[in-house]
Amino acid sequence: MHLRSKPWAAPWLAEHTDLVIPQDQATQLKGHWSQQFDQEQPIQVEIGSGKGQFIMEMALAHPEINYIGMEIQETAVAIAARKSFDRLGKLPNLRYLFGNGNGVETYFELGEIQKIYLNFSDPWPKTRHESRRLTYKSFLKSYEAVLPAGGEVEFKTDNRHLFEYSIVSFMDYGMRWQPEDFTLDLHADEAKVAGNIQTEYEEKFLALGQPIYKIKAHF
Amino acid sequence: MHLRSKPWAAPWLAEHTDLVIPQDQATQLKGHWSQQFDQEQPIQVEIGSGKGQFIMEMALAHPEINYIGMEIQETAVAIAARKSFDRLGKLPNLRYLFGNGNGVETYFELGEIQKIYLNFSDPWPKTRHESRRLTYKSFLKSYEAVLPAGGEVEFKTDNRHLFEYSIVSFMDYGMRWQPEDFTLDLHADEAKVAGNIQTEYEEKFLALGQPIYKIKAHF
Ligand SMILES: C[S@@+](CC[C@H](N)C(=O)[O-])C[C@H]1O[C@@H](n2cnc3c(N)ncnc32)[C@H](O)[C@@H]1O
Ligand SMILES: C[S@@+](CC[C@H](N)C(=O)[O-])C[C@H]1O[C@@H](n2cnc3c(N)ncnc32)[C@H](O)[C@@H]1O
Repeated sequence: MHLRSKPWAAPWLAEHTDLVIPQDQATQLKGHWSQQFDQEQPIQVEIGSGKGQFIMEMALAHPEINYIGMEIQETAVAIAARKSFDRLGKLPNLRYLFGNGNGVETYFELGEIQKIYLNFSDPWPKTRHESRRLTYKSFLKSYEAVLPAGGEVEFKTDNRHLFEYSIVSFMDYGMRWQPEDFTLDLHADEAKVAGNIQTEYEEKFLALGQPIYKIKAHF
Repeated sequence: MHLRSKPWAAPWLAEHTDLVIPQDQATQLKGHWSQQFDQEQPIQVEIGSGKGQFIMEMALAHPEINYIGMEIQETAVAIAARKSFDRLGKLPNLRYLFGNGNGVETYFELGEIQKIYLNFSDPWPKTRHESRRLTYKSFLKSYEAVLPAGGEVEFKTDNRHLFEYSIVSFMDYGMRWQPEDFTLDLHADEAKVAGNIQTEYEEKFLALGQPIYKIKAHF
């Protein structure tokens, strides 16, 4: 997903650095992210949060968790943050971070993040772009560096090839997963879809009748 | 797949008991299947061989392996056996067995079978029919009882739910699999499709543009 840049984005972000943490500030927050939230409680991060529907609704549904929506596109993070700010103000348990998932360890301490979500990550179908996929081994290494031992990565996608690639990449990396944390058709499975919060992409693909794949894997 | 019974089937089978082993004979062959073949070499079994295209072409492609096509429907096994017999005579390394996969241990000794193939097994979508699925735990127990330690089950299907169910069932049973032995789209994967022999169902679903799922799992 590439978004055309919006003239309002940069000035809006400059005015809301307490909601969308700028990169220089983020590196200094390493080990101290709890300060950014009203409550000291587990922190979960979505990498590639796009327009932010998932992370915003997760924050509403789970006040006992602190959430960070991380995005590499300035325009996306600005759209996500502004939408939630206009609708709900500054939620006590939701922040945004403009940065690259491949390098989360520059922002977070080992164990500072309880869980990572990847939703409908860009598929990068060409083999020469493999290293850009959010489940490529260098990304997994970054995730491992910020999660506690046994930490979880939760991944949803409509893309069969990216899903297959990711399962293989998880296994090659030595990650483990439980049968109950795996589905090839999330929305056909009442037990597994309970409590599911849909992303923008998920809504779109569901409407087209496409199955959603999901897996939770552990280091 | 339910086949209407053919009047020629029973008499034809009665005349070819050296090609299609009847059940009573089969139980007596337990531990002595090698006698049925020209050469003493590894034996592989397809359970639910249907009209037999896969097992016949496997036998042609791999003269160094002995194959058995096992079927619960008399009509199917008769069609498969007659087709191969009319076209190729009695191949030295191909036999058929009219019987139930849930109970292979009545026909084979532990370790007598090197590998089991399941191709496009009936999906039995209703939960109350779970125990009929060829990857249900009671079937896995039977397979384990005839395969050597670490023995392999190779499974192909077009059916997403049966595939998901089967992966979970394999894992619940403690079976293991390698990333390279797993694909959500066999025919999109040049490396994995090399040497693949298509079944009747596979041809049909391929023509419809549906992906074929495949996994090889080990006890
Ligand atoms: C296809 S969109 C999906 C958005 C949202 N998660 C959803 O499911 O609707 C993928 C998003 O990931 C972001 N992204 C891609 N690579 C990234 C990276 N290395 N770090 C952070 N975000 C990334 C893209 O900018 C894009 O917004
Ligand atoms: C859908 S057909 C697939 C046939 C073939 N393998 C193919 O891929 O074209 C499934 C076959 O499995 C057979 N079958 C079902 N349950 C069985 C069992 N318990 N033991 C042996 N065969 C069985 C059915 O009779 C049917 O012929």
